[in-house]
Amino acid sequence: MSDLVTLAEIEAAAVRLTGVAVHTPLVAFPGKPLHIKAESLQPVGAFKLRGAYAALTAGAPVQGVITHSSGNHAQAIAWAARELGIPAVLVIPNNAPSVKIDACLDLGAEVVLVEPTIEARTETADRLATAHGYELVPPFDDRRVIAGQGTIGLEILAERPATDVILVPVGGGGLIAGIATAVKALSPTTKIIGVEPSLAADARDSFLLGRPVAWDPRDTGRTMADALRVNRVGDIPFAHIAEYVDDIITVTEEEIFDAMRQLAVKTHLIAEPGGAVATAAYLHHADELPAGKHCAAVLSGGNVDPGLLFG
Amino acid sequence: MSDLVTLAEIEAAAVRLTGVAVHTPLVAFPGKPLHIKAESLQPVGAFKLRGAYAALTAGAPVQGVITHSSGNHAQAIAWAARELGIPAVLVIPNNAPSVKIDACLDLGAEVVLVEPTIEARTETADRLATAHGYELVPPFDDRRVIAGQGTIGLEILAERPATDVILVPVGGGGLIAGIATAVKALSPTTKIIGVEPSLAADARDSFLLGRPVAWDPRDTGRTMADALRVNRVGDIPFAHIAEYVDDIITVTEEEIFDAMRQLAVKTHLIAEPGGAVATAAYLHHADELPAGKHCAAVLSGGNVDPGLLFG
Repeated sequence: MSDLVTLAEIEAAAVRLTGVAVHTPLVAFPGKPLHIKAESLQPVGAFKLRGAYAALTAGAPVQGVITHSSGNHAQAIAWAARELGIPAVLVIPNNAPSVKIDACLDLGAEVVLVEPTIEARTETADRLATAHGYELVPPFDDRRVIAGQGTIGLEILAERPATDVILVPVGGGGLIAGIATAVKALSPTTKIIGVEPSLAADARDSFLLGRPVAWDPRDTGRTMADALRVNRVGDIPFAHIAEYVDDIITVTEEEIFDAMRQLAVKTHLIAEPGGAVATAAYLHHADELPAGKHCAAVLSGGNVDPGLLFG
Repeated sequence: MSDLVTLAEIEAAAVRLTGVAVHTPLVAFPGKPLHIKAESLQPVGAFKLRGAYAALTAGAPVQGVITHSSGNHAQAIAWAARELGIPAVLVIPNNAPSVKIDACLDLGAEVVLVEPTIEARTETADRLATAHGYELVPPFDDRRVIAGQGTIGLEILAERPATDVILVPVGGGGLIAGIATAVKALSPTTKIIGVEPSLAADARDSFLLGRPVAWDPRDTGRTMADALRVNRVGDIPFAHIAEYVDDIITVTEEEIFDAMRQLAVKTHLIAEPGGAVATAAYLHHADELPAGKHCAAVLSGGNVDPGLLFG
């Protein structure tokens, strides 16, 4: 494809994000050749800040912003809008955790709840964007957003250039699309492996079939990894996945929960379920991964309901 | 005093620690003018790595190392010794959490358990150091160790120069001695506040009386903050505390536990009880703190027994 996001776009996003997004640490996992890219330490508790802010600063100043999201992107848009001094309207599926919805309200955004289907989300967001005259920044199907998420790939390679396997959670696909684009441009032999819950494996199916396929949202809704319940990968992310990603593997709910516990005890990082899938793949599916001496797993977010964590 | 640790010694330690200790992030606490210095993300899960490695590299190469510690310093010495390829013998009080003892064994060190008094620890360590001909690196009463811990102060001011209040846990006093020395040299108006459990407030008493006083270890042993059960501040740290520290305040066990929960939910960082006291002081004792617009709290370690965290 000729219209994939370029390394130059990702590097330009990195410049705009300097001093805004946290340059998150790569935390050593004790006893294993694994480092955790702790995106849970971003101000909104997830990597989504990168794509949101990158999109809102990619062109001419915008008067307001609207988006749809399972929660982390919504928080990121609310945070970025507040930074830029513009209003934000957030369309959120009604099965998102309350901790995420409350955080959006705390950031001063307006919240609109809808049914948890990609169609309900996008239709409502489109309608409200037109009504307000606001800029629509979707959570993943947007090259400006992908360029922002790709800055994670730049940081991993800058800090640990020998990294030969990078594990990345896949929901709508924006995160892995950006990281894969950056990494394959700078280090073509580094393997990029997507990870999904086995209860929401639409991206794995899409990868195998060579085109985006949708799962029933009643099925993807079963996983506790709420950030990865998106039932279809975006078209723009998928073009990058097809070009750059080496494999997509799946993990069980039990493996996700074990990874959350191990991350807390051994690396002292809180992961939300969707944030823990990459580590879960490393810990439980080593046989399905390419041989690597220097692995990195992206911990994409930490916004977990306290009840799930502390019982 | 003429023999206090100098800024030059701390800066030299920072050079030796480059590429060894993690430059830990200052994580924003949502909704408050507070950043958390996340030393829990060091390889051994605590700041102690800085002082241990700084001490072992301050002079001529050493053939082996011995120390006594409640656990985090012991892990740090074991880790630093492994990095430097030398043997380590660790004298650990028998009431230290098993998670810390196991971590030392995993790092290849020899562990000797003793009664939980400062006298039993130091006497055993001295005896074994003489017997083996190993270098003794105590956990806090050592200017090389203090210089290493002081690098945290350099990092806080380099990243956020406007920081006007820094809250620091106090056990043996090495951490606050180093940070206060660095910060007062570079930013004399920044206030340095020590924080202790009210169940182990020997440093607060020492600060008020102007000399180090010991508590009964049966009393300091009551706090769940095992890292802060040391029953007397070291003489060398105390000289720095008397010169540079602005105040020492105390927090209850309930306040510590609440801070651990809030750190996990809001900043996605796991703190051990002793690591959470500075945040607890900010959250629960604002009226006792100097006015500050840009506060930092040092989260000193994350090595908590999973049972305490997850119930």
